[in-house]
This record gives sequence, C-alpha cells and structure tokens, in this order.
Amino acid sequence: MAVGSADLPKLREALPLDAVLTEAPQLEPYRRDRALDPDAGTPLAVVLPRTTAEVQAAVRWAAEHRVPIVPRGAGTGLSGGSTALDGCLVIGTERMRAIEIDERTRTVVVQPGLLNAELKAAVAERGLWYPPDPASFEICSIGGNIATNAGGLCCVKYGVTADYVLGLEVVLADGRAVRLGRGLVKDVAGLSLLQLFVGSEGTLGIVTEVTLRLLPTPPTHRTVAAWFRSTEDAAEAIAEIAAAVRPSMLEYMDRAAVNAVEDQLALGLNREAAGFVLAGTDDAGPDARELTTILAILRAHDPISVEETTPERGERLASARRAAIPAVEAKGRLLLEDVGVAIPRLPELIHGVEAIARANDVTIAFIAHAGDGNTHPLVVFDPDDPAEGRGRTAPTARS
Amino acid sequence: MAVGSADLPKLREALPLDAVLTEAPQLEPYRRDRALDPDAGTPLAVVLPRTTAEVQAAVRWAAEHRVPIVPRGAGTGLSGGSTALDGCLVIGTERMRAIEIDERTRTVVVQPGLLNAELKAAVAERGLWYPPDPASFEICSIGGNIATNAGGLCCVKYGVTADYVLGLEVVLADGRAVRLGRGLVKDVAGLSLLQLFVGSEGTLGIVTEVTLRLLPTPPTHRTVAAWFRSTEDAAEAIAEIAAAVRPSMLEYMDRAAVNAVEDQLALGLNREAAGFVLAGTDDAGPDARELTTILAILRAHDPISVEETTPERGERLASARRAAIPAVEAKGRLLLEDVGVAIPRLPELIHGVEAIARANDVTIAFIAHAGDGNTHPLVVFDPDDPAEGRGRTAPTARS
Repeated sequence: MAVGSADLPKLREALPLDAVLTEAPQLEPYRRDRALDPDAGTPLAVVLPRTTAEVQAAVRWAAEHRVPIVPRGAGTGLSGGSTALDGCLVIGTERMRAIEIDERTRTVVVQPGLLNAELKAAVAERGLWYPPDPASFEICSIGGNIATNAGGLCCVKYGVTADYVLGLEVVLADGRAVRLGRGLVKDVAGLSLLQLFVGSEGTLGIVTEVTLRLLPTPPTHRTVAAWFRSTEDAAEAIAEIAAAVRPSMLEYMDRAAVNAVEDQLALGLNREAAGFVLAGTDDAGPDARELTTILAILRAHDPISVEETTPERGERLASARRAAIPAVEAKGRLLLEDVGVAIPRLPELIHGVEAIARANDVTIAFIAHAGDGNTHPLVVFDPDDPAEGRGRTAPTARS
Repeated sequence: MAVGSADLPKLREALPLDAVLTEAPQLEPYRRDRALDPDAGTPLAVVLPRTTAEVQAAVRWAAEHRVPIVPRGAGTGLSGGSTALDGCLVIGTERMRAIEIDERTRTVVVQPGLLNAELKAAVAERGLWYPPDPASFEICSIGGNIATNAGGLCCVKYGVTADYVLGLEVVLADGRAVRLGRGLVKDVAGLSLLQLFVGSEGTLGIVTEVTLRLLPTPPTHRTVAAWFRSTEDAAEAIAEIAAAVRPSMLEYMDRAAVNAVEDQLALGLNREAAGFVLAGTDDAGPDARELTTILAILRAHDPISVEETTPERGERLASARRAAIPAVEAKGRLLLEDVGVAIPRLPELIHGVEAIARANDVTIAFIAHAGDGNTHPLVVFDPDDPAEGRGRTAPTARS
C-alpha cells in the first residue's frame, strides 16, 4: 500500500504550493491527535486545503495511487481518530474556516475547520446561539464535532451536534463532492444519509461544508453546586434531578477529578468531598420551579454543602468541569473512556469503576455529563511501566 | 412474481389462525390507504401479527416465495405508502399495541400499531409528554409516524419523530430481527443505522418495537390568531415571527382551507380573510416577551383582526387547522403535496401555487406548518373528469 515519493510531484501539481507538506519536521505534528497514540505512523504528506476543490484534488490523487487517507480536524480528539498511518495522506481542514450567517432562516454555513468557539462567538454577535458545547469547545473544530457527533454540557437539554446539522457537502473516497440534506429546518424526505455521516468519524468521506441550525440567544441560566460525602449520594441526587426536571446542565466530578482541577486552577473546590454535582436550569418561570426542585433534591441527599451560585461563579465552576480532562492528563498518560448508561444505572457504573480501580491499583478519575448518562472514566497510567502496558490494554485485562 | 394460492397453507401454518386474512371482503380494506390510489392492487393475503416472531414468520414466508411485502400501519397515509400491489402480502401492525413506560429514564417502549393519541394519553397520566403531533394524531400509528418521520404542529419548536426515537427493533427482508440504537438518551457511537430507518417508509424493514424519549408535561401554551387581507401580509408576518422568537406553533391556512373547515365545523372562522395565522408560545417568562413580540409583528402587517385566545379557543383553532385536510378532501378527490422551503421563500411559494391554480382553473387549498417551512398545497380534483386525469398527473402537466 506504500507509495513511492515519485508520485508526490503529481499531488503538488494539483494543489497550491503551500497546501502540501512533505518535510519530516512539518509532518511530525500531524502524526497524532491528543490521544498521543504510541503506535502512530508517519504520513507520506499532509495536505491543508482551503476549498472543496482542493480536498477533491487530494482525494482523487490518493484514490488513484491507493494511498490511505486520514482526515483531520483540529487534532484535539482523545480517542485517536486522527492517528496517522505510515505512508498515508493526512488531509487537515484547519485552513477551511469560512462562515456565512443567515439571520432570517437562523442558519449558518461554515467550512469544517472553523472552531466551535469561533462559530459561537460569530453567531452571538447577531443574537444567535449554537448550543453544542463539548468541553473542548475553545480548541475543537466543527468538522471534528460532526465526525464524532460531539455532545457537551448543555446537550442534556439542547441535544448533540446531529440535532443541529441541516446540510453537508462531503467528498467521497473517489473524489466526488455530494450534498446531503437541503439546509432546511424541516426535511424528512428520503433516506437520511445526512445523519449517517454525522458521527461516522471520517470513514465515509470528508465533510467540506456544513449548514447548521441556530437558536435565539440562550435564556438566562442559573447554576447550583453541591458537594457530597459519598459517590452514592451524588449519583442518586443526579438520577432524581434528571427524572424531575429538564436541567440545562447536570455534570459530575469525583474526588480525583476535583483534586486534579484544583491543583491547576486553585478555585477553592472542596478537595475532601467524594462527589461534586453542578446543575443548571434555564427555567424562566416566575416561580423558579426547576431551581427550587433541584435545590430540594440536592439537600435531601445529605450533602456537605449546597451553593446557589452567582452567574460568574457558575461559569467558573463549569470551566472547572471543562478543565477536568487536561487536568487529569497532567497526572500521567490518559486513557479516556466514553461510556453511556441509562441514568438509573449511574450509581452502579460509578461503583463498578471504583472497584476496578481498587482491584488494579490504578487511578481512575470519573467525570460525567451525568444528566444524559454520558460518563468519562479517565484511566491514568504510566506508559513507561511495563505492568501498565502501552495504554491500549484495559486495566481489568491484567488483573 | 405472483404466487399460487397453494402456498397459503404454509403461511397459515406459521401463524395463529386469526392472523391471516385471505377472503376478498377481508382484503378490500387493506388495498388502499387514505391516498385512495385508483391503481391499487389486491393482496394475496393480509397478515395481522401481534408479536415480532409473527412478523418474522410472515416475512420469512414472503422471502421464501418471493412475494412482495407492503407494510401497513393505521392506513391513514395520504401519499399512498401502503397501497397494495396485486399478489402482495400486506403486513399490518394494527394489533401490535403494547406499551411500557419507564418514568425514571423518561422513555417508553411501544409496539408500532399503538396510535399516537394512545401514546400521548398513556404517558400524560404519568406527567410525561410525547411531543410529535401530526394533524392526524388521533388516528395514525407510531409505526407510521416512524416510517414517514412525521412532524406536526409543535415540531417547529420540539422537533420531528426522529428526534424522539432512541431505539428500534426491525425485521429485515430475510426475516431477521435486529436492534438499532440502545434506547439511551445519549448514544453517538457508530454509524446511525437507527436514523437511517426513521423515514424510510418501510423500504428497509418492518419496525416491530420502538423506544421513545419523553419530556416532562408541556409548559402552558398561549395562542394568538390573526386574519389577513392578503396572503403576502400573512406570509411576511410568519417569516418575521419565525426569525424573532421560537414559537411552539406557527400555522397557516388560506381562504380555501378556512372555508372548507368552516363548512364542516362552523367555528365562526373569517371566511373573507385571504390568510389565517395561528401562532403559539410556551415562553413562561414573567414579561411574556415572546407573546408581546408575536402580537406586535402580527399587528404591524395590516391584519383584519388579531385575537389573543383563551386556551379553549386556542385548542379549537388548532383543531380547525388539524381538520383542514379531511375538510378539503370532502370537496372532491385530494392530491396532497408536501413541500418544504426556507421560511423567507414562503411568500414566493404561496404566490407560485396561486398562479398554478389560476392558470389551470383548479382549486388548490394551501395550509402549512409555516414556522418550519413545511407546506401542504392541497389540489382538489374530480377523478371522473378526464381533463383532470387520474390523480397522479400534476395540474401543470396538462396546461
């Protein structure tokens, strides 16, 4: 499958001079994403196109020469989706950042390399809101969000990336560009190939243009923080809140995650608590029913403390939650897991992970978009310790 | 492709006695849905299973004997999706009506034959809400809603059927039953074959079990009705409302549709107005910002009258809108169209349809889920008039 460097002139001919990287130091940053896969290969070349036509040219060249393609967004993935193979062609979308907002239809058309935060900021200037907010929203790209069908903190109420994608332009493996969806809010005719692409991790093609639905400016959001003596109490409070109201945020961190964040940010988090719950509501009703319900449930589960925060403090605590993965990462090499459960089974999952950590004498920090049952057990290991393997062996496999 | 009646004993053997219909008078009601296709064929047999295993038995028999299958829900479709072919096997889900609600996870598992209204009523008893509300919700089935990815009046804010489907059990063409999705609120791993099935009109398999997401009891809903002198004024008001707020309902009927409904229901609708707009909001904020905005926009477009309704009157007017298709149907044979546009293009579409109706001297009533740009031009024709064809020829084709 490897291709001689003799073929590279043809690739260079088909693309602008600065769009093709082939020197070893240029290739190095494109070998890995944030999963830091120790088995990553070295690409033959990296292409950084600015247009759909340039993506097509690169894909056609790869198809003709049977060179495997690894599509890449901002390279912030934690599960190795952009890990290069030896002799592959990396096609990175980082220079594809155009954006065009249509306030009348409340939609936006973007190129895939635009960062989530850039999109949010641009539409906010027009009084509009793009809800999906992965914890990495300041550094991750929309193309990557689509490839992984990214969620986030507000997704418990406002849905995941798939819920906002109205249209895609994609380049298929033979270099054809096709449009999926018509960019309409209501469009239910025919098989939904659009939704098949969302979350397909670059395996079906490369997204080159995206039409997204927007919402009006978000309603005011009130945040409550609670600290618990036991993970059981925290997990049961979460399950009750999720069944009683529609929180706009319902996040969880355990002691290991809280301490990792506090080591970095010194926000005055409670290092002794077994579990931390951060709940939000944008219920604007005059009686603040949701807020009252959330407070009552948290207080009924024997908390150390419950704090109704100011908006500033609430945003700082949400940032603390978003900082959890890099903070835990700073403690050693990270193996990120991504486990979804029905919310009533959350206590059981937390228990099970604790038991695995104890049995294997390994640190597993536990954070969760708890309100939708999406959890991230964060296994911290030492890549230089042979007993802890090379990061691809689950801790239970060596017990 | 036709199969001898000699094969029917094998089908009968595989199924309970009362699940297989083969007598002509029994078959007749299963030849057509509400599209009343004049070219409908006569099935060899109709199977009315109660379980997934019975659906599998029928599908296996059909696969073995190469008999085409026409899946059928409640038979309320207006576009002929359940029209029988000569010698086909109709598999109808009307006896598959089990329901199991899980309040803790706010999900429900149903068989496909359950009516949308039955589902809504059952979950409402537990303080839960299933939003999708096609105008036919009292008579259409959940299986049919999934086959067509049905929308409805509240979908402008709360989304279509696809947004609520978390899991499916489907029987494929060879009789295998497979599960798609895991019934979890957050589930973004792998290709979304689940979403590929939603809206696939029975072409990929037969849905035999559905897991649906529910919401808490809906917030209070306030309704405003406005009557306009011109369709332009109405359409422009709609586009402005859709851009300014997030209405929970934004419906439109033209004069022909209003008159057809008034002929049947005598609700005191304004027969003289060129266009009728029905807007709803469930903004519960203390300043009722959305309601104020909607009223201001409607009043700025030279209306004949604007009425802030009581909840009872609002529900009666929504019922009037839901009654539009059967009311127009009573005027002659109906050719239902289903056209989606970006909302700013709504005035242009309404104009274009009016021009086609005039040029062809045919009645085209126009109704719309205007807030999401989903319109239904309703062409009324006389099936016995040779000039008006047999219902499959678009009016423009004979001009």
